[in-house]
Amino acid sequence: MIEPDTPRIVLDQDGGLALARLLDETVRAELNLPRPPQDAAVFPVSAGPVALTVDAYVAAPRFFPGGDLGSLAVHGTINNLAMRGAEPVALGLAYVVEEGLPVAELHRVTVSVAKAAQAAGVPVVTGDTKIVPRGAVDGLQLTATGLGVTLTNAPPTAGRGLPGDVVVLSGPIGLHGAAMLDARDELGLAVSIRSDTRPLHRLVAAMTAAGGGGVHALRDPGRGGLAGALTGLAGAAGVGIELFEAAVPVPVEVAAAGKVFDADPWELPSAGCLVALLRPAAAEGVLAAMRAEPGGAQATVIGEVTPGPAGQVTAWTVGGIARPVEPPAVARFARLF
Amino acid sequence: MIEPDTPRIVLDQDGGLALARLLDETVRAELNLPRPPQDAAVFPVSAGPVALTVDAYVAAPRFFPGGDLGSLAVHGTINNLAMRGAEPVALGLAYVVEEGLPVAELHRVTVSVAKAAQAAGVPVVTGDTKIVPRGAVDGLQLTATGLGVTLTNAPPTAGRGLPGDVVVLSGPIGLHGAAMLDARDELGLAVSIRSDTRPLHRLVAAMTAAGGGGVHALRDPGRGGLAGALTGLAGAAGVGIELFEAAVPVPVEVAAAGKVFDADPWELPSAGCLVALLRPAAAEGVLAAMRAEPGGAQATVIGEVTPGPAGQVTAWTVGGIARPVEPPAVARFARLF
Repeated sequence: MIEPDTPRIVLDQDGGLALARLLDETVRAELNLPRPPQDAAVFPVSAGPVALTVDAYVAAPRFFPGGDLGSLAVHGTINNLAMRGAEPVALGLAYVVEEGLPVAELHRVTVSVAKAAQAAGVPVVTGDTKIVPRGAVDGLQLTATGLGVTLTNAPPTAGRGLPGDVVVLSGPIGLHGAAMLDARDELGLAVSIRSDTRPLHRLVAAMTAAGGGGVHALRDPGRGGLAGALTGLAGAAGVGIELFEAAVPVPVEVAAAGKVFDADPWELPSAGCLVALLRPAAAEGVLAAMRAEPGGAQATVIGEVTPGPAGQVTAWTVGGIARPVEPPAVARFARLF
Repeated sequence: MIEPDTPRIVLDQDGGLALARLLDETVRAELNLPRPPQDAAVFPVSAGPVALTVDAYVAAPRFFPGGDLGSLAVHGTINNLAMRGAEPVALGLAYVVEEGLPVAELHRVTVSVAKAAQAAGVPVVTGDTKIVPRGAVDGLQLTATGLGVTLTNAPPTAGRGLPGDVVVLSGPIGLHGAAMLDARDELGLAVSIRSDTRPLHRLVAAMTAAGGGGVHALRDPGRGGLAGALTGLAGAAGVGIELFEAAVPVPVEVAAAGKVFDADPWELPSAGCLVALLRPAAAEGVLAAMRAEPGGAQATVIGEVTPGPAGQVTAWTVGGIARPVEPPAVARFARLF
């Protein structure tokens, strides 16, 4: 219940300066952005390949068990960099704020951004805030950019999967998507499901230290879930992938949510895990390194890369039945991630 | 007039794959983004300070004489980097698209992005597209990120203005804001006003080559216009600025638009010019270099930096009357830039 006198973002001419101060205090101060404001942040990097990413975060609802739009944007951006084998060095955040948004909500999301960035050890160095009239955006929208420095000269790339590669999954799937469906639903499930949104860069650093160039490809199963990640990797490399269905860890609450919401857990966004295609000789060492890291304790082999058919992903049941794994429709789980 | 059977972005489950292909063909192909899609772009940079920026572009209308949301996002991002004395090396674009947007409009904006990036010589290396339901965003929103490499070891910074510095303006003010007001208005003015949106990095490179560390501070008068740029620079450096009002070039059509729309030209967004605070010894050389460049032909001295009062900007009329220049309200010209 929001009180009628809740302070809200206003887009009136007289309030302009007060609004500028408010944004300054709320966003700039919480994120510890440099003063005075600059058009761009300047900072040193070492020579070599860098990684650059930009993603819009449109998740609804903005607050959910285990996280919110702010932590999701920070983790998602860090993970985009990590999937290219890069150590994240800086983040930027652009806010589009709708007139009428409670100031407390803007503040809460910003505190979450700041906490997530600090916990990950990656500073937010630049930002932008725009206020738009009612109806021009759904409350608050974040777009995050990230810059990273690659850890090896042969960073993982989507198209590098080779026949014989081992397919490894770092942890259970579907928790983020199930938490979002549950948080979005008015009835809700009897059990509480928390998103596993987390930064994966330290896990990737450990994998890279153990496996070097043997870490062929990485992808986090966010939008599109495990099915999207695997079909994407198989398509990019022009290889096939065969999976042991029973090896994929699906938490019982995710399976339950899947039944209630008619959602295949393999298609549900998974914010806190990754899939890796590993050179067979590197697999054992990389798996051991993963299991020693937070977020990787349950790392497990779920399948292998085959010569083809190109882009085809097949899951084998315990009973020996093959089922094709299809890329999920883009819109199937819109705004869960 | 839009025909009822105009192809539009749809957010239905069955159309998901068709939509993914459409986005792929429309955005990825036009921008010549690398295939297969990657979570982040990887490319080499030389060692040293880099500049990173992210800005949301929310301009309404999306199409206006002289440009559109796409060219504005590319130029604005390049100019953010240029204002820190950095040569832009890579851009990223995140789209948030509302269900129902005509596909042709998405295509037109994307072609504009591609053309602007190519003309500026800065590649778009990474991108993101999200589709949201009707009402979650106003048609189409772009957020752009840019990475640059600084041209000198003492890049210009907002807080470096020193008493005695010469204040230089590269060109006429207010054209973008006046064009936007005119395009937004249903009646329109009798004269046609075109936005001067353009990339300023080559102008800045010429200034840096001529002036080096003597280019103390740069700002483009986008949101907030000339008044916002100058009060921002004075506040950041804790100095005063005194201006010769008559020296500031206000095009006749901008002055006319200002009267019609009750808008101070000094507060109107100016997309294609910049203000510079220059060490006096460097001013003559930098001015000459500016005048030899496109976009700098009308570069002129408009004032000087004084010891104080800190943050105070004063404009002197030809008649010797001083008027205070105030930062415009944030919301005064919302969505013009």
